[in-house]
Amino acid sequence: MISVVILGAGNVATHLYKALSKTQETEVKQWYNRSIDAINSFKNEVYITDDLSQLKQADIYILAVSDDAVKPLTKQLPFENRLVVHTSGSVNIHDMDKKNHRGVFYPLQSFSKSATLNFTDVPICIEAIRSEDYHLLKKMAIAIGSPTKKVNSEQRKVLHLAAVFVNNFTNQLYRVAHEITESEGAEFDLLKPLILETAKKVQKLSPYVAQTGPAKRNDKKTLNKHAKLLTNKHHKDIYDLLTKSIQHTHGRKKL
Amino acid sequence: MISVVILGAGNVATHLYKALSKTQETEVKQWYNRSIDAINSFKNEVYITDDLSQLKQADIYILAVSDDAVKPLTKQLPFENRLVVHTSGSVNIHDMDKKNHRGVFYPLQSFSKSATLNFTDVPICIEAIRSEDYHLLKKMAIAIGSPTKKVNSEQRKVLHLAAVFVNNFTNQLYRVAHEITESEGAEFDLLKPLILETAKKVQKLSPYVAQTGPAKRNDKKTLNKHAKLLTNKHHKDIYDLLTKSIQHTHGRKKL
Repeated sequence: MISVVILGAGNVATHLYKALSKTQETEVKQWYNRSIDAINSFKNEVYITDDLSQLKQADIYILAVSDDAVKPLTKQLPFENRLVVHTSGSVNIHDMDKKNHRGVFYPLQSFSKSATLNFTDVPICIEAIRSEDYHLLKKMAIAIGSPTKKVNSEQRKVLHLAAVFVNNFTNQLYRVAHEITESEGAEFDLLKPLILETAKKVQKLSPYVAQTGPAKRNDKKTLNKHAKLLTNKHHKDIYDLLTKSIQHTHGRKKL
Repeated sequence: MISVVILGAGNVATHLYKALSKTQETEVKQWYNRSIDAINSFKNEVYITDDLSQLKQADIYILAVSDDAVKPLTKQLPFENRLVVHTSGSVNIHDMDKKNHRGVFYPLQSFSKSATLNFTDVPICIEAIRSEDYHLLKKMAIAIGSPTKKVNSEQRKVLHLAAVFVNNFTNQLYRVAHEITESEGAEFDLLKPLILETAKKVQKLSPYVAQTGPAKRNDKKTLNKHAKLLTNKHHKDIYDLLTKSIQHTHGRKKL
């Protein structure tokens, strides 16, 4: 049984709490947050505290706090030589105070407050200074059903950046499509199956192989038709840049 | 029983042939293509021809051909007063020769040669000059299990443009993420569950509500970290433009 203390009360902390308290292989011994109010509703199922000096002994301390809070929080911990991990995509493992054994447990997924999340869909990027810690963290990930991958701080930074492209930027393209359709009285909803199919396609094919459309074909007639339809300059900028990008990737044009 | 003749041999034609020949409510009476070779492998299951003068009588003629071929093909048809539809997102219904009754049967989805496609995931945008034709086309769509929507030529053009954003451009963002990760020895595969989750999220939430990340939060520290990581100028241009776009949408910045 792996004993865990969770620090923080955001989406990642809450989803980890729920997953870790469900399995037989892990036990959440305590939940800490700076402000007790955020976790008060869990007080009947787990020890809660807002006092760092009251932290219980555990195998792993998970700091699921904002990027900026990681470093100062590791300094404030009133113990040494225990395993302390953070869950951030962009904080270097060496930014943590070295009085404790350090590790990273970065779930590469988008966490919403409400949606229930299946950790089988959440790859965990694991990093640790000591190999025994790496194996313990891997065991914890497997206990909640997650696939795992050994990822160093440099690779993790790059994954975090790439995640912005496939998540935030992709979502913004959906938003632009929403603006374009609604402005002409067409229904955004009609695009939803295509959105899903596009994401499914690259589960098996590389994005290079999966590409289609007028930019790739260099179909100037359609590109011109679209240019005329785009009345919003900002939408047109995005159209032009991504068309150029596709043509570059597929050997149609130099940048 | 609705009788159909299919003209063309691309992905849309082939998928429609398979779907229409499977249901009880529709019958593919004949399959035409300019070059017989492309459909020769189907000759034991359906009448095939490369001769327009040999076209059989049917309730609906589906022109699943390239955009440029639609207009000339409608002119070449050796009959009148029958229902002729095209399947293109961007060809106006009035571009078709008016000697026949005209309609549009536009499947809003990405068609690959290999992948089997379930038409329940393919919304059909229907347009027709005559209301009885509209109802017949709707009946045909329902027969293959598709949701349908009445969409006029202007709305269809806009949907076709929006589809480029959610399909081709989104796929290009996946490609950029692939380039970013692989260049640093990180695994693109780790992003696949996030790609799927991002697409699933907007099936229920609007893209506006679904947005998260450093651009929306105006988290300058992370934005700066990413700027430093982006060594490829072209990737940086996309990062900057889409960050600006998100900040504009969420009231952080004027364009």
